Amino acid sequence: MKSLEEITKIIEAEIEQLDWSMPPQGLYEPIKYMLSNGGKRIRPMSVLMGCEMFSGNVKDAIPAALAIEVFHNFTLLHDDLMDRAEMRRGKPAVHIKWNDNTAILSGDVMQIKAYELLAKTPEKYLKQTLDLFSTMACEICEGQQYDIDFEKRQDVTAEEYLDMIRLKTSVLLGNALKTGAIIGGASNEDADLLYNVGINIGLAFQLKDDLLDVYGNSQTFGKKIGGDILCNKKTYMLITALEKAEGNTKNELLKWINASDFNPEEKIKAVTNIYDLLGIKEICEAKMDEFYEISLENLKKVNLNLENKENIFKLADSLMKREV
Amino acid sequence: MKSLEEITKIIEAEIEQLDWSMPPQGLYEPIKYMLSNGGKRIRPMSVLMGCEMFSGNVKDAIPAALAIEVFHNFTLLHDDLMDRAEMRRGKPAVHIKWNDNTAILSGDVMQIKAYELLAKTPEKYLKQTLDLFSTMACEICEGQQYDIDFEKRQDVTAEEYLDMIRLKTSVLLGNALKTGAIIGGASNEDADLLYNVGINIGLAFQLKDDLLDVYGNSQTFGKKIGGDILCNKKTYMLITALEKAEGNTKNELLKWINASDFNPEEKIKAVTNIYDLLGIKEICEAKMDEFYEISLENLKKVNLNLENKENIFKLADSLMKREV
Repeated sequence: MKSLEEITKIIEAEIEQLDWSMPPQGLYEPIKYMLSNGGKRIRPMSVLMGCEMFSGNVKDAIPAALAIEVFHNFTLLHDDLMDRAEMRRGKPAVHIKWNDNTAILSGDVMQIKAYELLAKTPEKYLKQTLDLFSTMACEICEGQQYDIDFEKRQDVTAEEYLDMIRLKTSVLLGNALKTGAIIGGASNEDADLLYNVGINIGLAFQLKDDLLDVYGNSQTFGKKIGGDILCNKKTYMLITALEKAEGNTKNELLKWINASDFNPEEKIKAVTNIYDLLGIKEICEAKMDEFYEISLENLKKVNLNLENKENIFKLADSLMKREV
Repeated sequence: MKSLEEITKIIEAEIEQLDWSMPPQGLYEPIKYMLSNGGKRIRPMSVLMGCEMFSGNVKDAIPAALAIEVFHNFTLLHDDLMDRAEMRRGKPAVHIKWNDNTAILSGDVMQIKAYELLAKTPEKYLKQTLDLFSTMACEICEGQQYDIDFEKRQDVTAEEYLDMIRLKTSVLLGNALKTGAIIGGASNEDADLLYNVGINIGLAFQLKDDLLDVYGNSQTFGKKIGGDILCNKKTYMLITALEKAEGNTKNELLKWINASDFNPEEKIKAVTNIYDLLGIKEICEAKMDEFYEISLENLKKVNLNLENKENIFKLADSLMKREV
């Protein structure tokens, strides 16, 4: 088995080799910019690891791994445009560095390029991986739509929120592992178990993100602490707090949510205090641990020796221990 | 062989049967709106006709036909957004009826749905049709990029313009006929001939469009005559006029192009007069006829009886005779 570092190197080398030098550069240069902009490459790595654990090699899964990474970056590009987010991984978003139309059109062509890469999957597995990919891709758009819809709603439940993040973020990781497994020749049962591994790590990962945004170490987290609180982002923590809070605490929380004129530091401190009072951190951690446990249980059930699963255990562990 | 009317009916019935009723409706309703908004269905019809002429049946080509129609409508949706066009086929464009983000996201999911439909093509032909589709889809985005780039340039040549419309519009028709032929079991040689048929009809069709915008009958044309002249759209006619004009005529043409304050009717009349003086109508008609002839020559070379090619001849004829 290759080490996680070796797998990362393979992915980086393959991404580096993708050619975006053709005309018109107004269309293709932003794609090179997006893909060379770093990122943890967790999804393409998951494809290769999902494949290697069954087949012992990763070569056949490389096109699918690249397809998923290109598609993931397409979603970031269009999401940044829709959310009017100005920065991505410390650099200006494509719609800022270029313009809105470039972000639309370069994103569109990235989606096509993702399918073009996927079509290089061995023909034996092509139809199945293609169908799984399209299902996943639609789900991600559905997740983004729910995310937009939820911004206008005041009654989003924790359950609805978790389903939204399952669609918007987790299906990508589930699909990555399952697609790798299929190309590695796994049984349908094992491929489905790996899908569940990915979905549940994905959910745990997102809850970790929500937690770090409030309780992370500002030195290591990268983003500014409290950003979600300032913009009233409907995270699992805020939704749970709104469900749990009563009386004065609820009034205080609603006051901060509806305030249009406030001191940012004061709002972050006040809402964090309410979270502390209601035990929101512990509730969120418990939920996160629950998803993580389900993920590990599914991984344990996969019909392989423990050593073949080691990389996925390591990946899951690193995603949960992260402080950034 | 089915009549053109029968083929239209099959397409309309199949489009009608596509289900867009699933949640979230904020994502899927605009797709239903786009697809039920009419249009001539020339591209999906071409897929079915390309298939039927070789195999005698059209069933296997239906998924590819629908994929091409959904993809075509996706390009219209995103192009309208990028061009800030307010109307499409007499109804408000999606970004007007809903908003920009809806246009982006519903367009994105249409692209995925196009691939999802295409994946239902018989597995024997899947890889080939998939690769052709992705190549075409990238080319269409490249054409749109060139179209955007050309707006900022004053030195676009007729050759560059024709290559841009080949990418932006003709490859779709070429791909439709070729994909149909492949699924109908045509030889590679015949499939390539049909590709050329489509490319050249497509080019002739676009030149006809440019012509009608200036010399069409305002009663039957649907759009307002002279729209291209008013916005200085770099059509084949304007580019050729700029190439041909000299002395006072060139100064007069440039004056109208650079005028910021003018009477619309006066500008249309003046530029049309310059076109008349330079014989632009005849030059454009000759170029259009040239493409049309190449198209027919390619069709004649296809290794089939004349009666099997009759529908394509009829389609080409109807596209050239149209006044709308």
